[in-house]
Amino acid sequence: MEFLKLLEFKDFFDKKIKNFFENLDLEDYLKEPLFYYIENGGKRLRPWIIYNFGQIISINKKNLIDIAIAVEILHSSSLIHDDLPALDNAKLRRGALTTHLKFGEYKAILAGDYGFTLPLQIVAGLDNIKEGNKLLLVDYFIKTILKLFQGEMEDLIFEKEDKNVGEKEILEMYSKKTGAVFGFCFASPFLMAGEAELAKEMNKIGTDFGVSFQIFDDLKDIFTKEEDIGKETNKDVNKKTLLNFYNFQETQIIADNIYINVLQKLEDLNLKELSQLLKEVRKIIETR
Amino acid sequence: MEFLKLLEFKDFFDKKIKNFFENLDLEDYLKEPLFYYIENGGKRLRPWIIYNFGQIISINKKNLIDIAIAVEILHSSSLIHDDLPALDNAKLRRGALTTHLKFGEYKAILAGDYGFTLPLQIVAGLDNIKEGNKLLLVDYFIKTILKLFQGEMEDLIFEKEDKNVGEKEILEMYSKKTGAVFGFCFASPFLMAGEAELAKEMNKIGTDFGVSFQIFDDLKDIFTKEEDIGKETNKDVNKKTLLNFYNFQETQIIADNIYINVLQKLEDLNLKELSQLLKEVRKIIETR
Repeated sequence: MEFLKLLEFKDFFDKKIKNFFENLDLEDYLKEPLFYYIENGGKRLRPWIIYNFGQIISINKKNLIDIAIAVEILHSSSLIHDDLPALDNAKLRRGALTTHLKFGEYKAILAGDYGFTLPLQIVAGLDNIKEGNKLLLVDYFIKTILKLFQGEMEDLIFEKEDKNVGEKEILEMYSKKTGAVFGFCFASPFLMAGEAELAKEMNKIGTDFGVSFQIFDDLKDIFTKEEDIGKETNKDVNKKTLLNFYNFQETQIIADNIYINVLQKLEDLNLKELSQLLKEVRKIIETR
Repeated sequence: MEFLKLLEFKDFFDKKIKNFFENLDLEDYLKEPLFYYIENGGKRLRPWIIYNFGQIISINKKNLIDIAIAVEILHSSSLIHDDLPALDNAKLRRGALTTHLKFGEYKAILAGDYGFTLPLQIVAGLDNIKEGNKLLLVDYFIKTILKLFQGEMEDLIFEKEDKNVGEKEILEMYSKKTGAVFGFCFASPFLMAGEAELAKEMNKIGTDFGVSFQIFDDLKDIFTKEEDIGKETNKDVNKKTLLNFYNFQETQIIADNIYINVLQKLEDLNLKELSQLLKEVRKIIETR
């Protein structure tokens, strides 16, 4: 089977999500702040996983794209709220003003609120899927969104209350904040196929994938200059990451090991094509 | 059939929702800010409607209570975000500090986020309901939550940008901001029963009921002193209400007419018991 590489996929997906917003029956005062980060960039790694995993197990492409759009909107909305003055107080994102600085704070808060629920409407509105499978998918998605908020809250509490946390708490927090959504990306094609047991396994593996992704992200933040990534770097001195306990090389090894373990688990499940796909994006994930 | 009056119902329901939170598997850092307004008061009008309407058409009580809890959490979460500094900047609610002043702003934002999605988990987790009916219920609930955000956004834009809006725009905004959730309260028992067509009618009638409720609320805000209602009054000079166009008596007549029309429509649908119930709470809704 031929797969779109991440960069080609981005072009393909960007057209789809642009089209979705153009056809979305929603007032500009919500549509514009909600589409703003999406339009300004992003690797589309989450959509890419859903789309390619789903193709391997022959899921309807239209449904895969809809779920991918839902996840990208969720992800983007979480960035809108993360960036708020009371949370990360970020000024720049993807080389441009953050949503609250561009549109005003109350519009950023409400666009985020809307963007956390809209993805559920997309998934609840899928056609060509059995009622039972759809309910399972919606239920998984709801739990994913709730975990995302828990992880975000823990991350902020650790930092703002300067908590004395260990490696275990940090990895646990990563598994909610970043892992949960990747867990859903890995699981959702299998939920579509009604493979509930396998989906549960995929959810766990995807969560680990998300944890390694988050650690690679922490490492990049340290060695990258502001102008290269379009957001402020090193601004949170109390931010809790694995780098509180390990040096750069040691941290890199931890992330590598989790990543290798993810590939191995996919092969153990006889999903070699999925493992192969993730091997190919590894370089892109590790570097900018 | 015997119905619990609103005040007796409040006692009954308060125990149920307290119990729900005690058994909820959630960290205190989210549970406490989420339960804070709920614990501090509220008439429980929305839960009362769901519970009593549902009993009239013989819906499983456990399910009615779960939906009522979901709606009360949604309502309370909308108050948490409304009160934020960037939105209404409220200091007091129900005679005590607002959530962000009590727990800190980032916790208020994230507790609200959590509280907008948790209700959907409750509804998606209902037992003893056909899959198709549950999907319909979840879909209605999602649309209700999205409308709530649209209404909230419009209300804020009207005020903060001092928009020159007419009566029509204000009533339209009320129908989203306050009407949508009441529409869901009216419709949800019928959705449980698989009466999709009737639920659609009930949704419309409930939305009108919510609009009249909102107008009565505006009227109370003007003539009530701060100490009587436990929140600041008359603080938003640019707030857009029907009182921009009509005097107190005229506005009262508009709300009365909508209310009477709601009762009439219920009788037209041969739902005299429902109309009777709403007649009884009218005094409580009109006055504090």
